[in-house]
Amino acid sequence: MINKLQKKAYINGYSSVGGKEEHRGPLGAALDHYDESDRFGQDTWEKSESEMQRVCLSMLFAKTGKKPGDIDLLFAGDLINQCTSSTYGLIDFDIPYIGIFGACSTAAEGLALAALSCSADYAKNAAVVTSSHFCSAERQFRFPLEYGSQRTPTSQHTATAAGAFLIGSENQSGDPGVYIDEVMFGITNDGGITDANNMGAAMAPAVIDTLTRYFKESGSKPDDFDLILTGDLGYEGYTIVKRFMSDLGSDVQSVLYDCGLMIYNRSLSDMHAGGSGCGCSAFALAASVIPDIKNGKYKDVLFLGTGALLSKASVLQGATIPSVAHLVRLRRG
Amino acid sequence: MINKLQKKAYINGYSSVGGKEEHRGPLGAALDHYDESDRFGQDTWEKSESEMQRVCLSMLFAKTGKKPGDIDLLFAGDLINQCTSSTYGLIDFDIPYIGIFGACSTAAEGLALAALSCSADYAKNAAVVTSSHFCSAERQFRFPLEYGSQRTPTSQHTATAAGAFLIGSENQSGDPGVYIDEVMFGITNDGGITDANNMGAAMAPAVIDTLTRYFKESGSKPDDFDLILTGDLGYEGYTIVKRFMSDLGSDVQSVLYDCGLMIYNRSLSDMHAGGSGCGCSAFALAASVIPDIKNGKYKDVLFLGTGALLSKASVLQGATIPSVAHLVRLRRG
Repeated sequence: MINKLQKKAYINGYSSVGGKEEHRGPLGAALDHYDESDRFGQDTWEKSESEMQRVCLSMLFAKTGKKPGDIDLLFAGDLINQCTSSTYGLIDFDIPYIGIFGACSTAAEGLALAALSCSADYAKNAAVVTSSHFCSAERQFRFPLEYGSQRTPTSQHTATAAGAFLIGSENQSGDPGVYIDEVMFGITNDGGITDANNMGAAMAPAVIDTLTRYFKESGSKPDDFDLILTGDLGYEGYTIVKRFMSDLGSDVQSVLYDCGLMIYNRSLSDMHAGGSGCGCSAFALAASVIPDIKNGKYKDVLFLGTGALLSKASVLQGATIPSVAHLVRLRRG
Repeated sequence: MINKLQKKAYINGYSSVGGKEEHRGPLGAALDHYDESDRFGQDTWEKSESEMQRVCLSMLFAKTGKKPGDIDLLFAGDLINQCTSSTYGLIDFDIPYIGIFGACSTAAEGLALAALSCSADYAKNAAVVTSSHFCSAERQFRFPLEYGSQRTPTSQHTATAAGAFLIGSENQSGDPGVYIDEVMFGITNDGGITDANNMGAAMAPAVIDTLTRYFKESGSKPDDFDLILTGDLGYEGYTIVKRFMSDLGSDVQSVLYDCGLMIYNRSLSDMHAGGSGCGCSAFALAASVIPDIKNGKYKDVLFLGTGALLSKASVLQGATIPSVAHLVRLRRG
């Protein structure tokens, strides 16, 4: 079901923070802060990720002039067990805290829930924060870095990045704003993939499911949008969704793109199948897509956050990898 | 901030499923299904927990006459890494899926979000499902059962239980309904506790914080309610909150109670400081508290889901344990 918002929800601010590889990628110059060491002054990777979230939300406040007391609801989550990057990173702000988990779709899930809350006047201002960190994710889902394991060609590189967004029911920016007027929550899908190093293929069915439902219910078609942006399908998943879109008769090349293909420079850094992680789409949105909507490059964007809902235990127990794709429509005006 | 709902959100159905110890506890007879082996026919504890959620939501459909296609939004989460109990347990229902994480406060967080969604007409019917399983939780947070570790007196017993709730903007039960008209999201708190075997003490500050904010903003006092019900403070946390309430001049003995103290029979099973887990409060609500509101024993209940937002890694890294308490007001009418 498409949730059409009763009132537009505006993205009144955005910030992003990243690590070394993200900084030397194509969007690096737009980061509000980066740390060349990826450590953010901390002595464990988990604490580094928390600190990255803390800095990112602080940056959002600095850029928007808002204070923590102005925020009614804070939606946050991450990939780390029990979402501790968000809990520890955001505890000092004393904002009512709603923990969410959508794996790498967390940015879209948070934007959707924050937009619904603001449009229904349950929050005047809501914030969304999410992050991922290559080193904490590798240790948790695969191997500690010290092990020096080799990665397969279909594997993606978890972005060391955080993104934060300020949502409100009024356009506070003066300029043409970026607003959300429709969201659609994803249905979990399972395409039968068991390879935790091919999450693009695991997530592609979720994107196809959500897009199919969206086009059917709205009566729209791919070419009605300036951009259909997926969260972190990478080259593997992008190729699958591209074929699906071509079958719909769409000029895919010009409309479909993926955050995981935007954030690294392939000639500088071999990230195999591309970027991934909660921070990947949050960073791409904050550093590139939302500014490009503001400046008029895009007017109407379908953003689909993509999440592979696996755990280390589920992989070790031989389970297939379910996935989900939440849709948020971002428009200029 | 108290979120006063624009329209009442009714709890139009509830179901609970449990294990052996939960069945022989005081609320055991009210379980819709139980498995004496705690295994639910599965070969790993993680799969057992997923299956428990699947059975629980199926029971909700059987009891309410609803079908999966009638449900617009499904809010679910659990304690297991990356919330896989919910993902795998609920994937077959094909309902738009919103993953949430509030540790043991998940039932309250889900009820609150579902109530907001229904009251704002973003869902006609929403479902909330959560679970915990003693064996999967022990393996993940402490030690595998095979290790045979001895537990400390302040430790709590993670309930092997799941609860499911059907929320809608209309009373579909005919009888006096149970409705939600106010929710208040918790602010994460940190009382400095580092002992993962004393989560009651870690969570008590969050309850005190939420109650203090609620009483202040609403102008109410503890004795205005028939019951103030916390999620899983156990004897340790309950004692702390009782003292706080006494200081407010309340007749605490008659108004304050905790789901963790309701679900086990101390003379039959030594559960140390009481029950805990996402399933603890969900089970107590579905098997006892909501029926008791329906039958008139209670008319006005403040339910505070309590969550300790730790992970195994955060404990091993010596971090203190943050906590959160989300408030949901449950009324008869």
